[in-house]
Amino acid sequence: MRILGIDPGSTATGYGVVESRDGKLFHVAHGVLRPPRGAAFAQRLDYLHRTVGEVIESHAPEVAAIEQAFVHRSPRSALVLGQARGAVLSALGAAGLTVHEYNPSQVKQAVTGSGRAPKDQVKRMVSRLLAIDYVRASDAADALAVAIRHAHGGRLEAAGVSPAPYRRRATPRVRVQVRGRT
Amino acid sequence: MRILGIDPGSTATGYGVVESRDGKLFHVAHGVLRPPRGAAFAQRLDYLHRTVGEVIESHAPEVAAIEQAFVHRSPRSALVLGQARGAVLSALGAAGLTVHEYNPSQVKQAVTGSGRAPKDQVKRMVSRLLAIDYVRASDAADALAVAIRHAHGGRLEAAGVSPAPYRRRATPRVRVQVRGRT
Repeated sequence: MRILGIDPGSTATGYGVVESRDGKLFHVAHGVLRPPRGAAFAQRLDYLHRTVGEVIESHAPEVAAIEQAFVHRSPRSALVLGQARGAVLSALGAAGLTVHEYNPSQVKQAVTGSGRAPKDQVKRMVSRLLAIDYVRASDAADALAVAIRHAHGGRLEAAGVSPAPYRRRATPRVRVQVRGRT
Repeated sequence: MRILGIDPGSTATGYGVVESRDGKLFHVAHGVLRPPRGAAFAQRLDYLHRTVGEVIESHAPEVAAIEQAFVHRSPRSALVLGQARGAVLSALGAAGLTVHEYNPSQVKQAVTGSGRAPKDQVKRMVSRLLAIDYVRASDAADALAVAIRHAHGGRLEAAGVSPAPYRRRATPRVRVQVRGRT
Protein backbone atom coordinates (compact mmCIF):
# COMPACT_ATOMS: atom_id res chain seq x y z
CA MET A 1 0.00 0.00 0.00
CA ARG A 2 1.32 3.42 -1.01
CA ILE A 3 0.42 6.32 1.29
CA LEU A 4 0.63 10.06 0.74
CA GLY A 5 1.07 12.07 3.94
CA ILE A 6 0.36 15.79 3.73
CA ASP A 7 1.10 18.67 6.11
CA PRO A 8 -0.75 21.65 4.59
CA GLY A 9 0.29 25.23 5.21
CA SER A 10 -0.17 28.46 3.27
CA THR A 11 3.57 29.23 2.96
CA ALA A 12 4.84 25.63 2.95
CA THR A 13 3.00 22.35 2.44
CA GLY A 14 4.98 19.22 3.21
CA TYR A 15 4.38 15.90 1.50
CA GLY A 16 5.75 12.44 2.02
CA VAL A 17 5.05 9.18 0.19
CA VAL A 18 5.79 5.84 1.85
CA GLU A 19 5.04 2.28 0.88
CA SER A 20 4.09 -0.48 3.27
CA ARG A 21 5.03 -3.92 1.92
CA ASP A 22 5.21 -7.25 3.80
CA GLY A 23 4.95 -5.35 7.09
CA LYS A 24 7.93 -3.19 6.16
CA LEU A 25 8.08 0.53 5.43
CA PHE A 26 9.80 1.98 2.37
CA HIS A 27 10.48 5.59 1.52
CA VAL A 28 9.22 6.74 -1.89
CA ALA A 29 9.49 10.54 -1.91
CA HIS A 30 9.16 13.67 0.18
CA GLY A 31 9.38 17.41 -0.30
CA VAL A 32 7.94 20.83 0.44
CA LEU A 33 5.62 22.80 -1.86
CA ARG A 34 6.19 26.55 -1.57
CA PRO A 35 3.84 28.90 -3.44
CA PRO A 36 5.64 31.84 -5.12
CA ARG A 37 5.91 34.60 -2.50
CA GLY A 38 4.86 37.55 -4.57
CA ALA A 39 1.78 35.89 -6.10
CA ALA A 40 -1.81 36.86 -5.30
CA PHE A 41 -3.50 34.59 -2.75
CA ALA A 42 -5.78 32.80 -5.25
CA GLN A 43 -2.71 32.03 -7.37
CA ARG A 44 -0.85 30.74 -4.32
CA LEU A 45 -3.75 28.41 -3.49
CA ASP A 46 -3.90 27.30 -7.11
CA TYR A 47 -0.17 26.51 -6.90
CA LEU A 48 -0.78 24.24 -3.89
CA HIS A 49 -3.75 22.54 -5.55
CA ARG A 50 -1.83 21.97 -8.78
CA THR A 51 1.46 20.76 -7.29
CA VAL A 52 -0.32 18.34 -4.95
CA GLY A 53 -1.99 16.98 -8.09
CA GLU A 54 1.46 16.58 -9.68
CA VAL A 55 2.82 14.71 -6.64
CA ILE A 56 -0.14 12.33 -6.88
CA GLU A 57 0.42 11.83 -10.58
CA SER A 58 4.16 11.15 -10.10
CA HIS A 59 3.88 8.74 -7.18
CA ALA A 60 0.41 7.19 -7.53
CA PRO A 61 -0.53 6.85 -3.84
CA GLU A 62 -3.60 4.75 -3.03
CA VAL A 63 -4.64 6.61 0.10
CA ALA A 64 -3.87 9.89 1.90
CA ALA A 65 -3.24 10.83 5.53
CA ILE A 66 -3.30 14.26 7.13
CA GLU A 67 -2.97 15.71 10.61
CA GLN A 68 -6.09 17.12 12.21
CA ALA A 69 -5.86 20.90 12.31
CA PHE A 70 -4.85 22.35 15.63
CA VAL A 71 -7.86 24.54 16.47
CA HIS A 72 -6.71 26.22 19.67
CA ARG A 73 -5.45 29.14 17.63
CA SER A 74 -6.90 32.45 16.55
CA PRO A 75 -9.84 32.50 14.11
CA ARG A 76 -7.63 34.50 11.70
CA SER A 77 -4.88 31.86 11.58
CA ALA A 78 -7.48 29.06 11.49
CA LEU A 79 -8.96 30.73 8.40
CA VAL A 80 -5.55 31.00 6.69
CA LEU A 81 -4.70 27.38 7.51
CA GLY A 82 -8.20 26.32 6.40
CA GLN A 83 -7.69 27.94 2.99
CA ALA A 84 -4.45 26.02 2.44
CA ARG A 85 -6.15 22.80 3.59
CA GLY A 86 -9.07 23.44 1.22
CA ALA A 87 -6.75 23.86 -1.77
CA VAL A 88 -4.84 20.68 -0.84
CA LEU A 89 -7.81 18.53 0.19
CA SER A 90 -9.75 19.34 -2.97
CA ALA A 91 -6.75 18.04 -4.95
CA LEU A 92 -6.79 14.80 -2.92
CA GLY A 93 -10.53 14.53 -3.55
CA ALA A 94 -10.04 15.16 -7.27
CA ALA A 95 -7.67 12.18 -7.39
CA GLY A 96 -10.30 10.02 -5.69
CA LEU A 97 -8.13 9.45 -2.61
CA THR A 98 -9.67 8.62 0.74
CA VAL A 99 -8.23 10.94 3.39
CA HIS A 100 -7.54 9.68 6.91
CA GLU A 101 -7.07 12.20 9.71
CA TYR A 102 -4.91 11.69 12.80
CA ASN A 103 -4.40 14.03 15.68
CA PRO A 104 -0.88 15.43 16.10
CA SER A 105 -0.11 13.58 19.35
CA GLN A 106 -1.16 10.22 17.80
CA VAL A 107 1.27 10.90 14.98
CA LYS A 108 4.17 11.78 17.31
CA GLN A 109 3.36 8.77 19.47
CA ALA A 110 3.41 6.55 16.38
CA VAL A 111 6.90 7.53 15.27
CA THR A 112 8.69 8.35 18.54
CA GLY A 113 6.71 6.53 21.23
CA SER A 114 5.85 9.88 22.86
CA GLY A 115 2.86 12.09 22.02
CA ARG A 116 4.84 15.12 23.16
CA ALA A 117 8.10 14.54 21.32
CA PRO A 118 9.90 17.68 20.06
CA LYS A 119 10.24 18.34 16.34
CA ASP A 120 13.85 17.18 15.97
CA GLN A 121 13.01 13.83 17.58
CA VAL A 122 10.23 13.35 15.01
CA LYS A 123 12.71 14.17 12.23
CA ARG A 124 15.31 11.73 13.61
CA MET A 125 12.83 8.88 14.01
CA VAL A 126 11.18 9.42 10.62
CA SER A 127 14.61 9.35 8.96
CA ARG A 128 15.63 6.22 10.90
CA LEU A 129 12.39 4.32 10.27
CA LEU A 130 12.64 4.94 6.53
CA ALA A 131 16.44 4.50 6.42
CA ILE A 132 17.00 7.81 4.67
CA ASP A 133 19.27 10.80 5.31
CA TYR A 134 18.13 13.13 8.09
CA VAL A 135 15.04 15.03 6.87
CA ARG A 136 15.73 18.70 7.64
CA ALA A 137 12.40 20.24 6.58
CA SER A 138 9.85 19.99 9.39
CA ASP A 139 6.92 20.11 6.98
CA ALA A 140 8.24 17.13 4.99
CA ALA A 141 9.11 15.19 8.18
CA ASP A 142 5.60 15.80 9.57
CA ALA A 143 4.08 14.64 6.29
CA LEU A 144 6.17 11.44 6.34
CA ALA A 145 5.22 10.93 10.02
CA VAL A 146 1.48 11.01 9.34
CA ALA A 147 1.96 8.61 6.40
CA ILE A 148 3.89 6.25 8.72
CA ARG A 149 1.13 6.59 11.33
CA HIS A 150 -1.37 5.43 8.73
CA ALA A 151 0.90 2.65 7.45
CA HIS A 152 1.33 0.78 10.69
CA GLY A 153 -1.99 1.68 12.29
CA GLY A 154 -0.33 3.04 15.42
CA ARG A 155 1.39 -0.25 16.31
CA LEU A 156 4.84 0.93 17.30
CA GLU A 157 6.50 -2.46 16.93
CA ALA A 158 5.25 -2.72 13.35
CA ALA A 159 7.06 0.51 12.59
CA GLY A 160 10.22 -0.70 14.24
CA VAL A 161 9.86 1.70 17.18
CA SER A 162 10.78 0.45 20.65
CA PRO A 163 7.68 -0.07 22.79
CA ALA A 164 6.55 2.54 25.30
CA PRO A 165 8.41 1.34 28.49
CA TYR A 166 11.77 1.95 26.83
CA ARG A 167 10.75 5.46 25.78
CA ARG A 168 9.59 6.25 29.29
CA ARG A 169 13.04 5.46 30.64
CA ALA A 170 14.41 7.89 28.08
CA THR A 171 12.23 10.76 29.38
CA PRO A 172 14.99 12.86 31.04
CA ARG A 173 16.83 13.17 27.74
CA VAL A 174 13.63 14.25 26.00
CA ARG A 175 13.00 16.90 28.67
CA VAL A 176 16.39 18.44 28.04
CA GLN A 177 15.58 18.66 24.34
CA VAL A 178 12.24 20.33 25.06
CA ARG A 179 13.96 22.90 27.26
CA GLY A 180 16.56 23.48 24.56
CA ARG A 181 13.88 24.40 22.04
CA THR A 182 12.40 27.35 23.96
CA MET B 1 -16.57 43.84 -17.94
CA ARG B 2 -17.91 40.52 -16.71
CA ILE B 3 -17.63 39.86 -12.98
CA LEU B 4 -17.98 36.64 -10.99
CA GLY B 5 -19.13 37.15 -7.40
CA ILE B 6 -18.63 34.24 -5.03
CA ASP B 7 -19.97 33.53 -1.54
CA PRO B 8 -18.09 30.40 -0.41
CA GLY B 9 -19.46 27.99 2.17
CA SER B 10 -18.88 24.33 2.91
CA THR B 11 -22.54 23.29 2.51
CA ALA B 12 -23.54 25.95 -0.04
CA THR B 13 -21.43 28.24 -2.21
CA GLY B 14 -23.31 30.98 -4.02
CA TYR B 15 -22.20 32.44 -7.31
CA GLY B 16 -23.42 35.33 -9.42
CA VAL B 17 -22.19 36.67 -12.74
CA VAL B 18 -22.99 40.24 -13.80
CA GLU B 19 -21.85 42.37 -16.69
CA SER B 20 -21.14 46.08 -16.52
CA ARG B 21 -21.60 47.75 -19.92
CA ASP B 22 -21.89 51.49 -20.70
CA GLY B 23 -22.35 52.21 -17.00
CA LYS B 24 -25.25 49.75 -16.79
CA LEU B 25 -25.51 46.43 -14.98
CA PHE B 26 -26.75 43.25 -16.62
CA HIS B 27 -27.51 39.90 -15.03
CA VAL B 28 -25.75 36.92 -16.61
CA ALA B 29 -26.27 34.00 -14.22
CA HIS B 30 -26.51 32.98 -10.60
CA GLY B 31 -26.88 29.81 -8.57
CA VAL B 32 -25.83 27.78 -5.55
CA LEU B 33 -23.28 24.94 -5.59
CA ARG B 34 -24.13 22.25 -3.05
CA PRO B 35 -21.64 19.39 -2.51
CA PRO B 36 -23.31 15.97 -2.19
CA ARG B 37 -24.22 15.53 1.48
CA GLY B 38 -23.01 12.01 2.04
CA ALA B 39 -19.60 12.48 0.38
CA ALA B 40 -16.28 12.52 2.26
CA PHE B 41 -14.92 15.98 2.98
CA ALA B 42 -12.13 15.89 0.38
CA GLN B 43 -14.72 14.89 -2.24
CA ARG B 44 -17.01 17.75 -1.14
CA LEU B 45 -14.16 20.23 -1.50
CA ASP B 46 -13.29 18.75 -4.91
CA TYR B 47 -16.95 19.24 -5.91
CA LEU B 48 -16.72 22.95 -5.02
CA HIS B 49 -13.41 23.37 -6.84
CA ARG B 50 -14.69 21.58 -9.94
CA THR B 51 -18.10 23.26 -10.19
CA VAL B 52 -16.61 26.74 -9.69
CA GLY B 53 -14.34 25.86 -12.63
CA GLU B 54 -17.41 24.89 -14.67
CA VAL B 55 -19.15 28.19 -13.86
CA ILE B 56 -16.05 30.06 -15.05
CA GLU B 57 -15.91 27.99 -18.22
CA SER B 58 -19.62 28.58 -18.96
CA HIS B 59 -19.71 32.33 -18.31
CA ALA B 60 -16.13 33.51 -18.96
CA PRO B 61 -15.82 36.21 -16.26
CA GLU B 62 -12.80 38.53 -16.47
CA VAL B 63 -12.48 39.20 -12.75
CA ALA B 64 -13.77 37.81 -9.45
CA ALA B 65 -15.09 39.40 -6.25
CA ILE B 66 -15.55 37.82 -2.83
CA GLU B 67 -16.57 38.95 0.63
CA GLN B 68 -13.87 39.10 3.28
CA ALA B 69 -14.38 36.28 5.75
CA PHE B 70 -16.04 37.25 8.99
CA VAL B 71 -13.38 36.30 11.54
CA HIS B 72 -15.19 37.03 14.80
CA ARG B 73 -16.24 33.43 14.95
CA SER B 74 -14.85 30.30 16.55
CA PRO B 75 -11.53 28.89 15.28
CA ARG B 76 -13.40 25.68 14.39
CA SER B 77 -15.91 27.41 12.11
CA ALA B 78 -13.17 29.66 10.69
CA LEU B 79 -11.29 26.48 9.73
CA VAL B 80 -14.36 24.96 8.04
CA LEU B 81 -15.09 28.18 6.16
CA GLY B 82 -11.39 28.51 5.27
CA GLN B 83 -11.41 25.04 3.70
CA ALA B 84 -14.37 25.93 1.47
CA ARG B 85 -12.69 29.24 0.54
CA GLY B 86 -9.45 27.40 -0.28
CA ALA B 87 -11.22 25.00 -2.65
CA VAL B 88 -13.05 27.90 -4.34
CA LEU B 89 -10.17 30.40 -4.44
CA SER B 90 -7.75 27.87 -5.92
CA ALA B 91 -10.27 27.37 -8.77
CA LEU B 92 -10.39 31.15 -9.34
CA GLY B 93 -6.58 31.21 -9.33
CA ALA B 94 -6.44 28.29 -11.77
CA ALA B 95 -8.55 30.33 -14.20
CA GLY B 96 -6.12 33.23 -13.88
CA LEU B 97 -8.76 35.51 -12.32
CA THR B 98 -7.77 38.41 -10.09
CA VAL B 99 -9.82 38.25 -6.88
CA HIS B 100 -11.03 41.44 -5.19
CA GLU B 101 -12.15 41.30 -1.57
CA TYR B 102 -14.78 43.54 0.01
CA ASN B 103 -15.93 43.59 3.57
CA PRO B 104 -19.56 42.58 4.17
CA SER B 105 -20.75 46.03 5.25
CA GLN B 106 -19.23 47.65 2.13
CA VAL B 107 -21.18 45.15 0.04
CA LYS B 108 -24.49 45.81 1.83
CA GLN B 109 -23.88 49.55 1.63
CA ALA B 110 -23.22 49.23 -2.08
CA VAL B 111 -26.53 47.55 -2.92
CA THR B 112 -28.91 48.91 -0.26
CA GLY B 113 -27.33 52.18 0.92
CA SER B 114 -26.97 50.73 4.43
CA GLY B 115 -24.04 48.69 5.75
CA ARG B 116 -26.38 47.00 8.22
CA ALA B 117 -29.23 46.04 5.91
CA PRO B 118 -30.99 42.74 6.68
CA LYS B 119 -30.70 39.80 4.27
CA ASP B 120 -34.11 40.22 2.62
CA GLN B 121 -33.34 43.86 1.80
CA VAL B 122 -30.14 42.73 0.06
CA LYS B 123 -32.15 40.15 -1.92
CA ARG B 124 -34.78 42.73 -2.91
CA MET B 125 -32.22 45.32 -4.04
CA VAL B 126 -30.04 42.82 -5.91
CA SER B 127 -33.11 41.59 -7.79
CA ARG B 128 -34.26 45.16 -8.54
CA LEU B 129 -30.83 46.40 -9.67
CA LEU B 130 -30.47 43.51 -12.10
CA ALA B 131 -34.15 43.54 -13.12
CA ILE B 132 -34.61 39.84 -12.39
CA ASP B 133 -37.15 37.83 -10.40
CA TYR B 134 -36.66 37.92 -6.63
CA VAL B 135 -33.54 35.88 -5.77
CA ARG B 136 -34.60 33.57 -2.95
CA ALA B 137 -31.27 31.92 -2.16
CA SER B 138 -29.21 34.08 0.23
CA ASP B 139 -25.92 32.63 -0.99
CA ALA B 140 -26.68 33.52 -4.61
CA ALA B 141 -27.96 37.00 -3.64
CA ASP B 142 -24.81 37.67 -1.60
CA ALA B 143 -22.65 36.53 -4.53
CA LEU B 144 -24.51 38.86 -6.91
CA ALA B 145 -24.19 41.67 -4.34
CA VAL B 146 -20.40 41.43 -4.13
CA ALA B 147 -20.19 41.32 -7.95
CA ILE B 148 -22.34 44.50 -8.09
CA ARG B 149 -20.11 46.12 -5.45
CA HIS B 150 -17.11 45.46 -7.67
CA ALA B 151 -18.93 46.63 -10.83
CA HIS B 152 -19.80 50.12 -9.68
CA GLY B 153 -16.87 50.68 -7.32
CA GLY B 154 -19.14 51.56 -4.40
CA ARG B 155 -20.78 54.51 -6.16
CA LEU B 156 -24.42 54.03 -5.21
CA GLU B 157 -25.80 56.29 -7.93
CA ALA B 158 -23.96 54.26 -10.58
CA ALA B 159 -25.82 51.19 -9.37
CA GLY B 160 -29.15 53.02 -9.42
CA VAL B 161 -29.41 53.08 -5.62
CA SER B 162 -30.84 56.20 -3.96
CA PRO B 163 -28.14 58.18 -2.16
CA ALA B 164 -27.62 57.90 1.60
CA PRO B 165 -29.92 60.75 2.88
CA TYR B 166 -32.99 58.97 1.50
CA ARG B 167 -31.97 55.69 3.15
CA ARG B 168 -31.48 57.47 6.45
CA ARG B 169 -35.07 58.66 6.43
CA ALA B 170 -36.06 55.04 5.89
CA THR B 171 -34.24 53.89 9.04
CA PRO B 172 -37.31 53.20 11.25
CA ARG B 173 -38.62 50.71 8.70
CA VAL B 174 -35.23 48.98 8.56
CA ARG B 175 -35.17 48.73 12.36
CA VAL B 176 -38.48 46.91 12.37
CA GLN B 177 -37.09 44.41 9.86
CA VAL B 178 -33.98 43.86 11.96
CA ARG B 179 -36.12 43.15 15.00
CA GLY B 180 -38.24 40.74 12.96
CA ARG B 181 -35.15 38.69 12.07
CA THR B 182 -34.05 37.82 15.59
